[in-house]
Amino acid sequence: MLFSLIFIVAFSPNFNKNKSNEEDTKMIKKFFDEALVNAESYKNLEHLCLNIGPRLSGSKNAQKAVEWTKKVMEDYGFDKVFLQEVLVPHWERGAKEEAKIVDNNLNLNMLAIGGSEPTPAAGITAEVIEVQSLDEVDELGEKVKGKIVFYNRAFDQRVIGTGAGYGGAVDQRSKGPSKAAQYGALAIVIRSVSSSFDDAPHTGTLSYNNDFKRIPAGALGVQSANKLSKALKENPKLKLFIKINSKWFEDALSYNVVGELTGTEKPEEIILVGGHLDSWDVAQGAHDDGAGCMQSIGALRLFKKLGIKPKHTIRAVMFMNEENGLRGGKKYAELAVKNKEKHLMAIESDAGGFTPRGIGVTGADKSLDKMRAWLEHFDKRTLYYIDNGGGGADIGPLHRETGTPMAGFSPDTQRLFHVHHSPNDTFDSVNRRELEMGTASLAGFIYLLDKYGL
Amino acid sequence: MLFSLIFIVAFSPNFNKNKSNEEDTKMIKKFFDEALVNAESYKNLEHLCLNIGPRLSGSKNAQKAVEWTKKVMEDYGFDKVFLQEVLVPHWERGAKEEAKIVDNNLNLNMLAIGGSEPTPAAGITAEVIEVQSLDEVDELGEKVKGKIVFYNRAFDQRVIGTGAGYGGAVDQRSKGPSKAAQYGALAIVIRSVSSSFDDAPHTGTLSYNNDFKRIPAGALGVQSANKLSKALKENPKLKLFIKINSKWFEDALSYNVVGELTGTEKPEEIILVGGHLDSWDVAQGAHDDGAGCMQSIGALRLFKKLGIKPKHTIRAVMFMNEENGLRGGKKYAELAVKNKEKHLMAIESDAGGFTPRGIGVTGADKSLDKMRAWLEHFDKRTLYYIDNGGGGADIGPLHRETGTPMAGFSPDTQRLFHVHHSPNDTFDSVNRRELEMGTASLAGFIYLLDKYGL
Repeated sequence: MLFSLIFIVAFSPNFNKNKSNEEDTKMIKKFFDEALVNAESYKNLEHLCLNIGPRLSGSKNAQKAVEWTKKVMEDYGFDKVFLQEVLVPHWERGAKEEAKIVDNNLNLNMLAIGGSEPTPAAGITAEVIEVQSLDEVDELGEKVKGKIVFYNRAFDQRVIGTGAGYGGAVDQRSKGPSKAAQYGALAIVIRSVSSSFDDAPHTGTLSYNNDFKRIPAGALGVQSANKLSKALKENPKLKLFIKINSKWFEDALSYNVVGELTGTEKPEEIILVGGHLDSWDVAQGAHDDGAGCMQSIGALRLFKKLGIKPKHTIRAVMFMNEENGLRGGKKYAELAVKNKEKHLMAIESDAGGFTPRGIGVTGADKSLDKMRAWLEHFDKRTLYYIDNGGGGADIGPLHRETGTPMAGFSPDTQRLFHVHHSPNDTFDSVNRRELEMGTASLAGFIYLLDKYGL
Repeated sequence: MLFSLIFIVAFSPNFNKNKSNEEDTKMIKKFFDEALVNAESYKNLEHLCLNIGPRLSGSKNAQKAVEWTKKVMEDYGFDKVFLQEVLVPHWERGAKEEAKIVDNNLNLNMLAIGGSEPTPAAGITAEVIEVQSLDEVDELGEKVKGKIVFYNRAFDQRVIGTGAGYGGAVDQRSKGPSKAAQYGALAIVIRSVSSSFDDAPHTGTLSYNNDFKRIPAGALGVQSANKLSKALKENPKLKLFIKINSKWFEDALSYNVVGELTGTEKPEEIILVGGHLDSWDVAQGAHDDGAGCMQSIGALRLFKKLGIKPKHTIRAVMFMNEENGLRGGKKYAELAVKNKEKHLMAIESDAGGFTPRGIGVTGADKSLDKMRAWLEHFDKRTLYYIDNGGGGADIGPLHRETGTPMAGFSPDTQRLFHVHHSPNDTFDSVNRRELEMGTASLAGFIYLLDKYGL
């Protein structure tokens, strides 16, 4: 009786499947338990935000962050920790920007857009033309000559996926400067690309078109933008004064920071999980993207802590320079091609340290159903969907150069664009439990990917 | 050709179903658009929190909140707005509590637990026995006599559904005082029932067992609890001083506030959506439960704003006295029975103004699949599950007395027990988009319930 039972059990594929399923569910729960109880991602993020702080590419703080994350991974005892050299742009904001409506002496909250040219030392004083789009500038043509163009199209609050809301407004920041310069504008200001109604200005990068003059560009807080718009309705001839004190320096030597757990069966095949270590200079880069970096390190730490030896090599990568150049992501891809590295998948966490919701995958269409079946191991209030489509800026070059499938971690993003690129992206805007659930979700997904492949 | 096409289309049940489905999806989107763009729940919550503030039952602020919410619903033009009289307990904290480790003169952060008896005017100074559970007090028995019992079992961080984590620790607060009094303890202090690691003490209600002496009870901040525990390890004989200055008053006249849109087809059948208007006295009651109240009013407002005339009567109910007596919920049920009111369903929002996730329903088992089919109309990042089980404290009496199915709105709750019942439950801890998505989710669910029934 006993023998035959064992026989049946051992050869029943269903039984094995169920047993394996139960073990997987238990393992995923262990990841969550460890992350939620010991909260090391959160403690590490606290150090990164409060002891290092803002870390724009080329800055001393960026270098400190490189050295510190390398040490953190060494101290955790990862199998290999190394740096990848990369030359990065080096731009500095300089002294605090100024913006003022001259006619009524009303100060406005403004930050230079990242990469902006400075104004002359005396600033720029000019009339303002408010527009809602780049197309409107094309229609106005030479009428913007000698003026400051004010892009004031608001973040669309109706969009549930706030990333798409951001995407719907960000052209004003990235392409607005050169579009205005094309017709002879002296400078531009934009309504910050922010879902908040507060007055914190949000910076971010711009992309000059070299066919046109590189004119200064600033981002106004949302309330400041409203004030300017209202004042323009009362007096279309009002003059705006802006002063930007930024400066470009020579490219600086910096690094991607890589830590790995070497695979036991397929060490040559890599699962990458990463974020970007650089942040804008105006805040602590807590959500963008200290969170993603600490979660990536944290995911590997969970493997170590729970004594799991992955079959594939698992790499945590802190990319440098996502914010204003993407040099780290490009360098990583270049080296992967050069060294003939094979990646099973690259995963990025760069949407904030908020409660997990899903993962979006690009380049693994045939495996979507397989991955969706893994979701049964997660509490439905953590990971509950796999989207077709998604990825991350830093892993994009690797995906494009090598065809590596890429995945983007999708937490809840209702709060992200309130703080993103603004002085409000600080450690105290991160919730410990939300951040740690992200770490555990990433670790769990990687665990299943490592175990079952694509 | 055209005629036959029309013929086929008009009589195809599938087509009608699809058309209706599409219309429903569009309508749900309209609820979200309006809520997210105009954010009236958020603006109303701002008024409730900042212009009225804490509103414990029997307080002047509670009365202000009654009058103001009545006016808000009248100003929105709801078909009926009325009050239900209810006598409520009236307890006041009095002067700021004190707690100090006498031996090293270390002050601890403490709040009286709601309903606690005061200490004598000179306070209580006694030795402390630390325990992890009520059972441990039973085991200690007479050893706690003349001492202060310190319940120090922590909130279990591993539990994803934080409501269950709260439930796993709250017996220390509710039943801990009488359990200690049973064996002659002079007073108790607890580790606050909090998921946070900060030092804000969290109050809440206690339930004295009248067989035993009503002894004073305080809640220490988590860090203060850690300090006390550490000090006790160093010196088990240390003395703790606590002083609580609370006072009970006569029951006070107060009100449930009810607003309704009268049904066009089944006016006698009611869909109730509500929250509780009272809050603890130590903060603004933003998440607990200003959010639920403003969402309930907001859901009806969305119907009005979009010109939707519901078939059933839809009622927004601001219950009074959920926190320390539940008198409003009991009174509502009593009147419903007396007036032979029929409710299709009662829905409560009392889990904070966070991003929507699901709805838990009790007493409508046969309709769960039907309701689950409605989820297709919602963005998956809003409502995405219907649980079997759930409800709310205020609608519990109605459910039990009349068999009315009840439902509890389940937002993400990772942050709730960081602020719940503590001075940190303030307006600035509420995110506009998260709150408004809750309002829209409730309105959308009610819309489908009104249209399709159970």
